[in-house]
Amino acid sequence: MKSPFLHPDRLFPAEPQLRAIARRLYDGIATLPIISPHGHTDPTWYADDQNFADPASLFVIPDHYIFRMLYAQGVPLEKLGVPRVDGGETETDPRAIWRLFAEHWHLFRGTPIRIWLDHAFSTLFDINEALSPPNADRLYDRIAQKLAEPAYRPRALFKAFNIEVIATTEGALDPLDAHRRMRESGWDGRVVTTYRPDSAVDPEFEGFAKNLVTFGAITGCDTTTWTGYINAHRERRAFFKSYGATATDHGHPTARTANLSESEAATLYERVRHGQASAADAEFFRAQMLTEMAKLSLEDGLVMQIHAGSYRNHNRGLFAKFGRDKGADIPQPTDYVHALQPLLDRVGNERELTIILFTLDETVYARELAPLAGHYPCLRLGPPWWFHDNVEGMLRFREMTTETAGFYNTVGFNDDTRAFPSIPARHDVARRVDCAFLAKLVAEHRLHEDEAHLVAHDLAYGLAKSAYKL
Amino acid sequence: MKSPFLHPDRLFPAEPQLRAIARRLYDGIATLPIISPHGHTDPTWYADDQNFADPASLFVIPDHYIFRMLYAQGVPLEKLGVPRVDGGETETDPRAIWRLFAEHWHLFRGTPIRIWLDHAFSTLFDINEALSPPNADRLYDRIAQKLAEPAYRPRALFKAFNIEVIATTEGALDPLDAHRRMRESGWDGRVVTTYRPDSAVDPEFEGFAKNLVTFGAITGCDTTTWTGYINAHRERRAFFKSYGATATDHGHPTARTANLSESEAATLYERVRHGQASAADAEFFRAQMLTEMAKLSLEDGLVMQIHAGSYRNHNRGLFAKFGRDKGADIPQPTDYVHALQPLLDRVGNERELTIILFTLDETVYARELAPLAGHYPCLRLGPPWWFHDNVEGMLRFREMTTETAGFYNTVGFNDDTRAFPSIPARHDVARRVDCAFLAKLVAEHRLHEDEAHLVAHDLAYGLAKSAYKL
Amino acid sequence: MKSPFLHPDRLFPAEPQLRAIARRLYDGIATLPIISPHGHTDPTWYADDQNFADPASLFVIPDHYIFRMLYAQGVPLEKLGVPRVDGGETETDPRAIWRLFAEHWHLFRGTPIRIWLDHAFSTLFDINEALSPPNADRLYDRIAQKLAEPAYRPRALFKAFNIEVIATTEGALDPLDAHRRMRESGWDGRVVTTYRPDSAVDPEFEGFAKNLVTFGAITGCDTTTWTGYINAHRERRAFFKSYGATATDHGHPTARTANLSESEAATLYERVRHGQASAADAEFFRAQMLTEMAKLSLEDGLVMQIHAGSYRNHNRGLFAKFGRDKGADIPQPTDYVHALQPLLDRVGNERELTIILFTLDETVYARELAPLAGHYPCLRLGPPWWFHDNVEGMLRFREMTTETAGFYNTVGFNDDTRAFPSIPARHDVARRVDCAFLAKLVAEHRLHEDEAHLVAHDLAYGLAKSAYKL
Repeated sequence: MKSPFLHPDRLFPAEPQLRAIARRLYDGIATLPIISPHGHTDPTWYADDQNFADPASLFVIPDHYIFRMLYAQGVPLEKLGVPRVDGGETETDPRAIWRLFAEHWHLFRGTPIRIWLDHAFSTLFDINEALSPPNADRLYDRIAQKLAEPAYRPRALFKAFNIEVIATTEGALDPLDAHRRMRESGWDGRVVTTYRPDSAVDPEFEGFAKNLVTFGAITGCDTTTWTGYINAHRERRAFFKSYGATATDHGHPTARTANLSESEAATLYERVRHGQASAADAEFFRAQMLTEMAKLSLEDGLVMQIHAGSYRNHNRGLFAKFGRDKGADIPQPTDYVHALQPLLDRVGNERELTIILFTLDETVYARELAPLAGHYPCLRLGPPWWFHDNVEGMLRFREMTTETAGFYNTVGFNDDTRAFPSIPARHDVARRVDCAFLAKLVAEHRLHEDEAHLVAHDLAYGLAKSAYKL
Repeated sequence: MKSPFLHPDRLFPAEPQLRAIARRLYDGIATLPIISPHGHTDPTWYADDQNFADPASLFVIPDHYIFRMLYAQGVPLEKLGVPRVDGGETETDPRAIWRLFAEHWHLFRGTPIRIWLDHAFSTLFDINEALSPPNADRLYDRIAQKLAEPAYRPRALFKAFNIEVIATTEGALDPLDAHRRMRESGWDGRVVTTYRPDSAVDPEFEGFAKNLVTFGAITGCDTTTWTGYINAHRERRAFFKSYGATATDHGHPTARTANLSESEAATLYERVRHGQASAADAEFFRAQMLTEMAKLSLEDGLVMQIHAGSYRNHNRGLFAKFGRDKGADIPQPTDYVHALQPLLDRVGNERELTIILFTLDETVYARELAPLAGHYPCLRLGPPWWFHDNVEGMLRFREMTTETAGFYNTVGFNDDTRAFPSIPARHDVARRVDCAFLAKLVAEHRLHEDEAHLVAHDLAYGLAKSAYKL
Repeated sequence: MKSPFLHPDRLFPAEPQLRAIARRLYDGIATLPIISPHGHTDPTWYADDQNFADPASLFVIPDHYIFRMLYAQGVPLEKLGVPRVDGGETETDPRAIWRLFAEHWHLFRGTPIRIWLDHAFSTLFDINEALSPPNADRLYDRIAQKLAEPAYRPRALFKAFNIEVIATTEGALDPLDAHRRMRESGWDGRVVTTYRPDSAVDPEFEGFAKNLVTFGAITGCDTTTWTGYINAHRERRAFFKSYGATATDHGHPTARTANLSESEAATLYERVRHGQASAADAEFFRAQMLTEMAKLSLEDGLVMQIHAGSYRNHNRGLFAKFGRDKGADIPQPTDYVHALQPLLDRVGNERELTIILFTLDETVYARELAPLAGHYPCLRLGPPWWFHDNVEGMLRFREMTTETAGFYNTVGFNDDTRAFPSIPARHDVARRVDCAFLAKLVAEHRLHEDEAHLVAHDLAYGLAKSAYKL
């Protein structure tokens, strides 16, 4: 999508020779369809195809990337319309929220949010100027007007975005109703689910004991026993597969794994199930469940994703008032070399298994992840995640993993987003940054340009498709 | 200050387009006054305005940045005139010290020390050649001659350096005599103090028990009780404020904080006060005192600085012989995400509080500090500190913090120095490096040039002034 | 060695001004002799000067850098001819192995392996095309034919490679027969040994108890006592020195050191010697032995190298089947600041001692190693090691150490390799990358070009020679 506001060479190096190579590489992949194998868009959008409500509800209120930055500068979340746990009063006028957002637009200078929003505003709404207090109302009106049009409904945007396939993420207990409605509607967009069992795997998850009961009820398995509990996962995984799932996803505070015997695992499950788990037990149980999931993946072929290292809900006061996912998840140092060993002892040499590792601790790229993925057949490296899904973060990822793990132990790009309009921008950023990185290798005679074209294609399309079996 | 020796485009990227942008940005801020909100210059210089003694006493003997490098290559500190604890013999001829320094000038190739000294020599003494054994005497004489002139006294240099305001750092027990003399002299230079209470806060500080007694005596507070002890801090902070202080500074080995109840804190204080503190108690007390200081900041508005992560006096043999601050302080891994939580539980969501975080562990920039500062309203990021206050360190800081925390959760530059003649050079380096970083964003179309000019101004001047309330 | 396939400006920055400076610097050092002070080439090559067997045996089968990458993508090690511990069946046809290698050539895109092999193929065998399945047989034949010629024997290659001196590494129990035969042959190539005592120092080494007995037998020392054991090391070090050794090498999982009294050490040795050592004892003993080795170095002048931070044989299944050194050694976080203190308490201020530190944890470069080496007279920094011995790794090393430690607390390049044909390529990469780094300093006016020439020479030749006393 051409834009008079977005420079065609954005994110490419300034040096003319590098820029020319980057542009040639990018030209070969710019219009490839989007493979989005991991993300958090809402399946009801595709199922029900309703218009989005208003600019603030689409861009500000649900996006913790955005409101955290305003909060850090003293803007109360109430004023941004973020709902309170107690149902207390918050701003309800989307235009007022939008104006507040415009007032703080300068905070996003130099951040990827600015790149994503400029891209979305320009390509979707033909807005070719920076948001600011003077034009806030005019831009609000323009976006609001467009959002009411049929061309701005989710399914139309899905096609306009050139999405070949997108994965959503649903919890183990989710009935997948939206996916069912989507299928029944006969719509031809390809949206698959992903099995994310945290609520039935993490003893510290809110309502875990109750979740186990539900888990038994919906699967017809006896979740009062270890064997029944594992069978319940087996059932749910099959159910998720029936809605297109090719992968599971595991969001753990650490990457710790365990390799218990059946009887040890059963004993630990007993403690956990009865709510008698200490913090150490809980961690141990999550650890063992990663290995169990790997074993189930060997049975059913689901690709396994491990997202480790986030200290969730760090701001306890805010959590009490507004609940989870409010921009207060903070990365922490994350060990992989010792943490993964029990799992790798069990399945590390399996060639049919794929485990994709994500990190919020960049110090492990060169030290642990690239050496691990450059050796174990089951391991692959997921793209830079969350706080590192940006220009410098992507460059650091390539600079710190490529020489040890190469390109072919990585899996292309994940947008990982719930911000639907940002999806094309995010994939475009990833493609441009990878081309910039490759251009440097080419210009420094570390890679032939003809090979760089092949690699660029793999990074933008092929690797995600093959690694996730899409 | 023009110089035939210092290239006008130094520290700017070589690529012509980048360089042109960097130069334009720099031209807009090059002559802004210096805001120096954190440093260690000696207030007696400004109070008494005496000439500096000689080149070695000004540039070599007191500067552990410099003599550590010679020591690392086998030069005994005695030969560099560094005073011994036991008063034993050391070199007393400044010219001999200067010659030894000149012999080892090559050690500083590629280091910021070389940049600072070349800058000071050229702009202050019109020396436009590299120091070397053949010219050592000639340069010594030139500097010595100048230092004797009135234009080279501290107050004249203060004006020549275009310093708008500079903060010194004084201990809790310091009578601030130099600041008083300065005020009484009627001099119009703006020099403010900073409250640094380590000697009365750290149970492992030399003479801590005695310090508490003094602390009580000078404040008229009963420091045998927890309440009286906290009141003594309250008194001293007010006294420091009367000499212009807008900030406190806390140099702790770790960033650990605590959030004890009044009675728990009082009990811990009792143990600590009687010299019964274990190492764990001492750490716990320091931790609690950070939170106490934050609470006092909520009362009196002083900005709080936390400098964490230095393993002081690592070289025990050298410490015994020469005392502290001899270039043997070594950074260590530093946790912030867990360490700060107790303090943040207590005051993290206060919008009127400012806590500026410094680190010697760069791995936390992208992983912990930028995510924390990009969320909590009270947190800001201090500039790269000590071993990281250099060209590559400054670039890494921007590359690893900007995309998550933006520019507006940072606070501009601190020179943090006791090397007075290096102050203009240090601020100039910071301005140039920030412009180089911004030029890249502009050239890659990640930021509009008009916005980059605004950011450059904020980084060089505005942010330090507002964050430190100067 | 000119090549029509290898670009003369490879690894230099694309920007024309930077490239021109880099080329000028490189031209001044490109043909300097190779000083290879640390590596793992087989001394029998030089002693016996036999032709290498075939392309697969030379380039694939013994090189875990290469086969680990194929293994990571699902190629069984058996198919690559890697010998099994149980003597079980593996591929024996070198041509079949070579073809499999050629099929997976794309995995090495962007890796240093590709650079090294392209270099060796082009300069040694006049192969000026990328390896691929279609040309695999032809290239195999070409290499095989050349390997049979006298000019491709080890001693001829040694001369062709312009090696001034190379160090091999032998275990404490090694009789140094190959070195003796070399000396007796009258060949004038300079090959020195290095004392690597891990098998007699690490209680967890296979056969440690038996090794101690042998150690006593070959030295005539009573290794049943602590004093005798230390004397045995003293004897062996002297023996190794008689075969040219100027250095020792210590491969430990951590950098931990200890500073026990004689009687404490003797007691610990008793436990260790009788196989009663716990894991903690073993670590403690290794720790103490680093300090003992430093003390012996003070006596005999051997330079000490500490290679810390590798978690060896991480893949237990593979270890059981194929043994050690199969590409499954994974780096782990490594502390130096606390770990080295006991040793530094003992010998840190000795000006006559040289201890060269290596790391697999790059986070310590700027945080710990550069500050330590920029202060302690006995410490120097070894070059980027193993997973970091590549273009980006070398740049990170310079970017993160230079401003604090300068160039003169580093020791030039080590190839650290057992892949003989890669030696010229590896040194060439290091020289080019250092010139690229220096070119940036010059272009940004952080270093004068005349000084950069001197530094380039020191990094390529002088520092290795002086630091290792070669």
